[in-house]
Amino acid sequence: MNVEAKKKTFKSFHYGVYVLTAKAGDEVSAATVTWVAQASFEPPLFSVAVRRDSKSHALIEASGQLALHVLAEGQKDLAAAFFKAAKFEDGKLNGYATEPSPNFGLPLLLDPPYWLEAEVVAAVKEGDHTVFVCRVVEAGVREEKPALCLRDTGWSYGG
Amino acid sequence: MNVEAKKKTFKSFHYGVYVLTAKAGDEVSAATVTWVAQASFEPPLFSVAVRRDSKSHALIEASGQLALHVLAEGQKDLAAAFFKAAKFEDGKLNGYATEPSPNFGLPLLLDPPYWLEAEVVAAVKEGDHTVFVCRVVEAGVREEKPALCLRDTGWSYGG
Repeated sequence: MNVEAKKKTFKSFHYGVYVLTAKAGDEVSAATVTWVAQASFEPPLFSVAVRRDSKSHALIEASGQLALHVLAEGQKDLAAAFFKAAKFEDGKLNGYATEPSPNFGLPLLLDPPYWLEAEVVAAVKEGDHTVFVCRVVEAGVREEKPALCLRDTGWSYGG
Repeated sequence: MNVEAKKKTFKSFHYGVYVLTAKAGDEVSAATVTWVAQASFEPPLFSVAVRRDSKSHALIEASGQLALHVLAEGQKDLAAAFFKAAKFEDGKLNGYATEPSPNFGLPLLLDPPYWLEAEVVAAVKEGDHTVFVCRVVEAGVREEKPALCLRDTGWSYGG
């Protein structure tokens, strides 16, 4: 395989920027992710690829639940805050306010404009990330704003 | 579920614009798709959601193979050409020149700047699209160009 061409092709893919949160027992995780796509209109499904060696992966496997937040243009700082391990204190995740999600009590960040609460319906474990296919059980819009595009951050993830 | 919020959230997702080609026996298909994301660095995997009722779906199921092309900025016409059924004549797909892919002989379009030749390693059939998780077997770069972002086309797919 032409490995350089494979890397350049993967790096050309466009993505939004998302923060995923999960909870199992007293444990909470949050992580910035990009490998996300819708997967079905009916039922409403999306896929998200999560690093196998991450705390988020462990908690999603344990609970079968996750929340996904879409970041807005201008929320690059919020994305950067979840590159590091999540600390949940006084209802705040790495300093950002949350509320419990309606069905599963997952921490929902208040700052991102859009969120989905979801349950895992399938998991594909063929690589260094697991593809979780998730069914939306609830959704919310806090403010209608254009979503952040990974290209506009100057960051890249993929290759 | 707040259906309007779910739709707006899904519509906020960012994507690239891709043309997928497939072949089984003498049958060839091509389709413009957007629900695509990388799924692993090692092995190199990506996911693509394909409509269950499409010819592409039938051919991918039959062969376990597909080619994915990343469209460049300015190639909106090329994307629009594959909204309609593919006609393969004299080595051209809907009038666009192709060559056979190196391993599987799938039609590779010559115009898109990046392509991946891949085999299906898993398929999740839980909705109106199937999520095919695919392993890259070969890749090529014809010209290093910025990829088309769905947002910039004025089109949307999702909701």
